[in-house]
Amino acid sequence: MQTGAPEFVLGVDIGGTFTKYGFVSRQGECIGENSLPTHADEPFSHFVARLVQAVEETRQNLGYPIQLRGIGMGAPNANYYTGRIEKPANLSWGDVDVVGQLSKYYKGIPVVITNDANAAAIGEMRFGAAQNMRDFIMITLGTGLGSGLVANGQLIYGHDGFAGELGHIIVDPNGRMHPNGRRGALETYVSATGIKRTVFQLLAEYPDESELRNLSFHEMTGEHITAAAQRGDKIALEAYEYTGRILGIKLADTVAYTSPEAIIFFGGPTKAGDLLLNPIKKHMEANLFPIYRNKVKLLISALEGRNAAVLGASALVWQEIEKT
Amino acid sequence: MQTGAPEFVLGVDIGGTFTKYGFVSRQGECIGENSLPTHADEPFSHFVARLVQAVEETRQNLGYPIQLRGIGMGAPNANYYTGRIEKPANLSWGDVDVVGQLSKYYKGIPVVITNDANAAAIGEMRFGAAQNMRDFIMITLGTGLGSGLVANGQLIYGHDGFAGELGHIIVDPNGRMHPNGRRGALETYVSATGIKRTVFQLLAEYPDESELRNLSFHEMTGEHITAAAQRGDKIALEAYEYTGRILGIKLADTVAYTSPEAIIFFGGPTKAGDLLLNPIKKHMEANLFPIYRNKVKLLISALEGRNAAVLGASALVWQEIEKT
Repeated sequence: MQTGAPEFVLGVDIGGTFTKYGFVSRQGECIGENSLPTHADEPFSHFVARLVQAVEETRQNLGYPIQLRGIGMGAPNANYYTGRIEKPANLSWGDVDVVGQLSKYYKGIPVVITNDANAAAIGEMRFGAAQNMRDFIMITLGTGLGSGLVANGQLIYGHDGFAGELGHIIVDPNGRMHPNGRRGALETYVSATGIKRTVFQLLAEYPDESELRNLSFHEMTGEHITAAAQRGDKIALEAYEYTGRILGIKLADTVAYTSPEAIIFFGGPTKAGDLLLNPIKKHMEANLFPIYRNKVKLLISALEGRNAAVLGASALVWQEIEKT
Repeated sequence: MQTGAPEFVLGVDIGGTFTKYGFVSRQGECIGENSLPTHADEPFSHFVARLVQAVEETRQNLGYPIQLRGIGMGAPNANYYTGRIEKPANLSWGDVDVVGQLSKYYKGIPVVITNDANAAAIGEMRFGAAQNMRDFIMITLGTGLGSGLVANGQLIYGHDGFAGELGHIIVDPNGRMHPNGRRGALETYVSATGIKRTVFQLLAEYPDESELRNLSFHEMTGEHITAAAQRGDKIALEAYEYTGRILGIKLADTVAYTSPEAIIFFGGPTKAGDLLLNPIKKHMEANLFPIYRNKVKLLISALEGRNAAVLGASALVWQEIEKT
């Protein structure tokens, strides 16, 4: 470490397939963005060694020295309190001590981890759409639905570090089967996968012609559904309406919990823009307890298209550094 | 004010019919407990004048001087941020500036207000079952269902001060009519009134003989229902089972929001004890996302039987005093 050199933190986003990283300044400038395959089927210690090697190579290649002030990470099922990834669905490592192992390589600087949706929330608060907000909710839409709850300017971790699992609140106890064997969880309806399941349900239920009838389940992507909706495809439009109704009704409850200033959406399905947001808003407002009506903003992430997960992970450790 | 005299705050619980107050020490000793009729049909300024007069008479009669360090109040629909009671259902004052008006009589000391469920939560945290807890949820059961959410050791007020209105989350959009004209809110099922409505529904639905068939809706109290259940009355037992199922399913969602250490119940229906708590626990656990199972304690308020609302209101202002 060279004092006087510009200060950066390392932001790391551990995903099921790829792990992305980059060096992020206090103001959100991101340099040395890179990635490596996660290989979650190999031992976790191998992953850590490969990550450190890749990061150090990238750092050498920056062309100028930096001060590394800390490391922030986001990963599925990561627990801020324990520093571990616990029972991840998409990583076969099992329970692993991420902070402990990384800290062996990087001594004397803070190393912190949280789940990806919480990292997104902190990133949005520091660099994105939630700047100056003290109370908001982050919803990330991908394979599942992740969420991060911020109240009084702080992320809510809860007693065990697992607060904010809105993907697992129940829409219908007899509803859609989740890969985890439980029925009717919100994310089986509201997520990239959930919207596709809705399209298939509608293709079964209605006889209307639709360009989406030409695609298999594995072929169909969110882009196909959005493009079809933009061309006026009834099935695709109805899929967004259906999704918005289910999410809107649940978000009306959500508002009664924490009364947020805004709900911010991140992830692939947000590319549908108002096709998705308008039905959510309509159904949320219709179901809100009157004192909350017309107060809550629905926003799309301001980090969409940038390396949001890396920025979020870096924001986590910047927050930690500034706390002390 | 006389320095050297023992320090107390005034705790005030403004209710639809009666307003209770008392002087509470830092350790929760309560002296000079008293009450006056609220007369919510008269102008609010009259109420304030009567309250101040009553409080000062009580203070004179204590027999020894005290230092009054602050005033904490709990009231339905009170907003901590604005210091006002806003759109109360059971008080015909409309929107009134409680803190502003009280502060005219008591200058130079903090005067704060919050809604009664939030006050209960803070009271429980300072003097009751939530001492040393940083993450818990308070549920108060009376005419309606109130709630206070504590995360990271702080009450969640939300952007507008109205967080924690769990009584208004929706069980069934086509369900029971609320006095406010909205259907299916949780408190139409889970509250003293809600349980009585359930008894009447069950008396209509089933032919079983029940001692509760001898009472009119206006005659029947929670005590009747509890006593019947304790004698094995099927309708009464089923009413608790039904209530527990509806609340348990919703609390499973609640846990996914804030992952609390405990959920604490307060109010008349808690006198039923395990008759109520066991079905809640059974259905909550059955519906919890697995990572939360067998972690969340269900507790009954430790202030039950004491002047909990006055203690809660006083805890609010003690907290405020210690913040500064």
